[in-house]
This record gives sequence, structure tokens and C-alpha cells, in this order.
Amino acid sequence: MADEVVLLDFWPSPFGMRVRIALAEKGIKYEYKEEDLRNKSPLLLKMNPVHKKIPVLIHNGKPICESLIMVQYIDDVWKDKCPLMPSDPYQRSQARFWADYVDKKIYECGRKVWTTKGEEQAAAKEEFIGCLKLLEGELGDKPYFGGEKMGYVDVVLVPFYSWFYAYETCGNFSVEAECPKLVAWAKRCLEKESVSKSLPDPHKVYDFVLHLKKRFGIE
Amino acid sequence: MADEVVLLDFWPSPFGMRVRIALAEKGIKYEYKEEDLRNKSPLLLKMNPVHKKIPVLIHNGKPICESLIMVQYIDDVWKDKCPLMPSDPYQRSQARFWADYVDKKIYECGRKVWTTKGEEQAAAKEEFIGCLKLLEGELGDKPYFGGEKMGYVDVVLVPFYSWFYAYETCGNFSVEAECPKLVAWAKRCLEKESVSKSLPDPHKVYDFVLHLKKRFGIE
Repeated sequence: MADEVVLLDFWPSPFGMRVRIALAEKGIKYEYKEEDLRNKSPLLLKMNPVHKKIPVLIHNGKPICESLIMVQYIDDVWKDKCPLMPSDPYQRSQARFWADYVDKKIYECGRKVWTTKGEEQAAAKEEFIGCLKLLEGELGDKPYFGGEKMGYVDVVLVPFYSWFYAYETCGNFSVEAECPKLVAWAKRCLEKESVSKSLPDPHKVYDFVLHLKKRFGIE
Repeated sequence: MADEVVLLDFWPSPFGMRVRIALAEKGIKYEYKEEDLRNKSPLLLKMNPVHKKIPVLIHNGKPICESLIMVQYIDDVWKDKCPLMPSDPYQRSQARFWADYVDKKIYECGRKVWTTKGEEQAAAKEEFIGCLKLLEGELGDKPYFGGEKMGYVDVVLVPFYSWFYAYETCGNFSVEAECPKLVAWAKRCLEKESVSKSLPDPHKVYDFVLHLKKRFGIE
């Protein structure tokens, strides 16, 4: 039986992008279904009744939710090509730790940068840059977080690169000036088609952020 | 070489209890080091410089942080005895999903029950019970979340049972009246020595909650 793989997603979602990269790395064909988050499809509500959020991966009719779990699932099931998780249990625990750190910090800190102003924004920027510097320190001199090859943490973090332009423009700062090695790493990831084809144009993300600011009444 | 295992922990922590249960299930001997969270040890700050939180597992000198990751690590390394994770990738993804749900909801919802009053507390109670009912639905008629045997989700959730008495007394409600099957499940888990020896007396947890309320100036 051929695998039937469906991805319920929304184009600017960094969480969805992770899953798109993982599927592309593994060479898995899938049906992409764009969701309208203001009018969620009955399929999304059925497949993710707990959180009602995208992305959702549906594999042979069965849903997998939460992007970190989805990427691990993809790596678990399609294990022959491009392993994303380290084989050593300790390295695996460290990859999970940094992926969890990205999940707990980067989205929320980044969101604060474009939803606030003045002192609050200055604090948000400082926190955001602090988080990125910590990640840059973890990267060290390795080409990828996964070492010589792109791995789990790379797949989990690189989607936010498509949001950097929006953060920078809203917050008036340069990630590259603060974290040159991290930006070099992101550009290295983007040389891979699995990444470049999964990430939207940063200017399009910025337009989307402007649209959200307008909708939420943020000047 | 014998494994050197150290656990930095604080007795009322449901996150620490998870790790204690997992270690006990696997029959791993370890040194338990109680932390004073108002005066954290240099070892804790060195081993978990990012979050500076307990629990931390130190295995042959190397730290593993974040309790969900620690339990998976323990299951990964000591795989011969009492596997906690399902062997099937889909079941594994579902176990991770529910463990993540517990992490995102139960602690925070429970905390709201004892830190609020009036309408806010009524809403917190309703949300908390809703979360427990959802988990009860997921348990269904199985003896454990892991099926016939205690598994990952059981280990992750059961520590909160030692907090139920505090939530119930502060919030004036009965979890057993709302979720009888869930309480029966918790009692089933407590029949295991790995659980009963890892969970503190609920009255002691309640005293600790009263102490916290006083310290935080919550009436």
C-alpha cells in the first residue's frame, strides 16, 4: 500500500515549515492543504480536536499533531533516508532539549518584538537577541546543529529565519549584526532545496505581519 | 564502568516525581540531591544554565534537563527493563502528544485553582476539570494510558495525583466525583512501589501549598 500523507498547514507557520522540510528531506510525496484559520475546515477540527491548530500530519488517515512530535514521527517512520535524530541517546536528549528551547522561547519572544512598542519592545528585542545568541553558542563552529549534517534542531529552528526580516523591520535591528554565525548557518540551510522550497519569501511574511498588526489594531 | 546517576530535585515537584518513577521502574540506583530553590546550588546552575530549574538528571557527569526529555532518555538508555515508550511509531507519537498535553495544561491549570479566588477560581476549576476529563476520555477502559502496562503518559501524569488533595481543598471540589475513572487509574498506579515511593503524602503537598500561599500573599 502506498502511503497517503496529507499536511494541513498555513503558509506563514514556522511550525508547518518544519514539517514541510522534514517531508522534503525524506522525499515523501504529500498533499498540502492550506487552512483558513478564521474558518477552520471540518477536517482540521476532526483531526486535531484538542488544540484545533495547524499543522496536522495525516498519515494513512491517522493524525499526528504538534510539530516537534510530527518531525520525530516522520524521522521514526521513514528512517532509511536522511536521519534527523542523532543515534546516540545522550545526543538525542540534547537535540530534544534545544528543540524544546526553540519552541518555548523563539516564537513568543519574536511575537513580542512585533506586537509591542517603546520600552516593552526594547526589552522584547533584548530577550529575543539573547535567545538567538544562546542558540548561536550551542551551534558553535559546527556547520549544522546536527553536526556535519542538517538534523532535528536545524529543521526546528530554520523556519524562523523567514520571519527575521519582519522582526528586524518592526524592531529596527539586525540579527546578522548581532548573530552573524547564526545567519550564516541559516543561509547554509537554505542552500538545500528541502529548506528553500519550504520557506516563504521573508517579504511576504513581513506583509503578513503588517496585515496582522492592522487586524489586531497594533500601530 | 558502573553508571553514576545523580538527580537534582525538590520533593513536591511533579516534574521531579516523573523522573523518580522512571528510575525506580528501571531499578536504577541514584543519588538524590534535594535543592533549595531559593538558594540554588552551584551544581544546579552549572548543570542547567539555560533554565536553572530542577529536576536535572546527571548521568556519568553529563546533564539531561526537562522532565519529559529525561524520562525518554532513561527509557532510551536502560531499554531492557520495563519499556515506557510504545514500540510502534504512531503509538509513540500519541504518547508524546498526551505527555505534551499534560505539560502544557495540568500544572498551569492546577496552579490557577490554588492561586485565585471567586469567579477566576471558578473558571480555573472548570478548565482544570475539563482537562482531566479529556485525559480520562483518552484513558478509556484501558488499565493504564500505556495499555496493559504503565507507560510514558502514566509516568508523566500520575505525579499530579499527589497534588489533587491541595487543588480540591483550595478549590472546594472533588476530582473523584468528576473523574472517577481517572482517580481509579491513579490508585492503580500507586499500587506499584515505583510510584508509591516516588510520590509524597498529599497532606504534605497541601501544607506546602499553604506555605506558598502565605509567602506569595494569597489569602
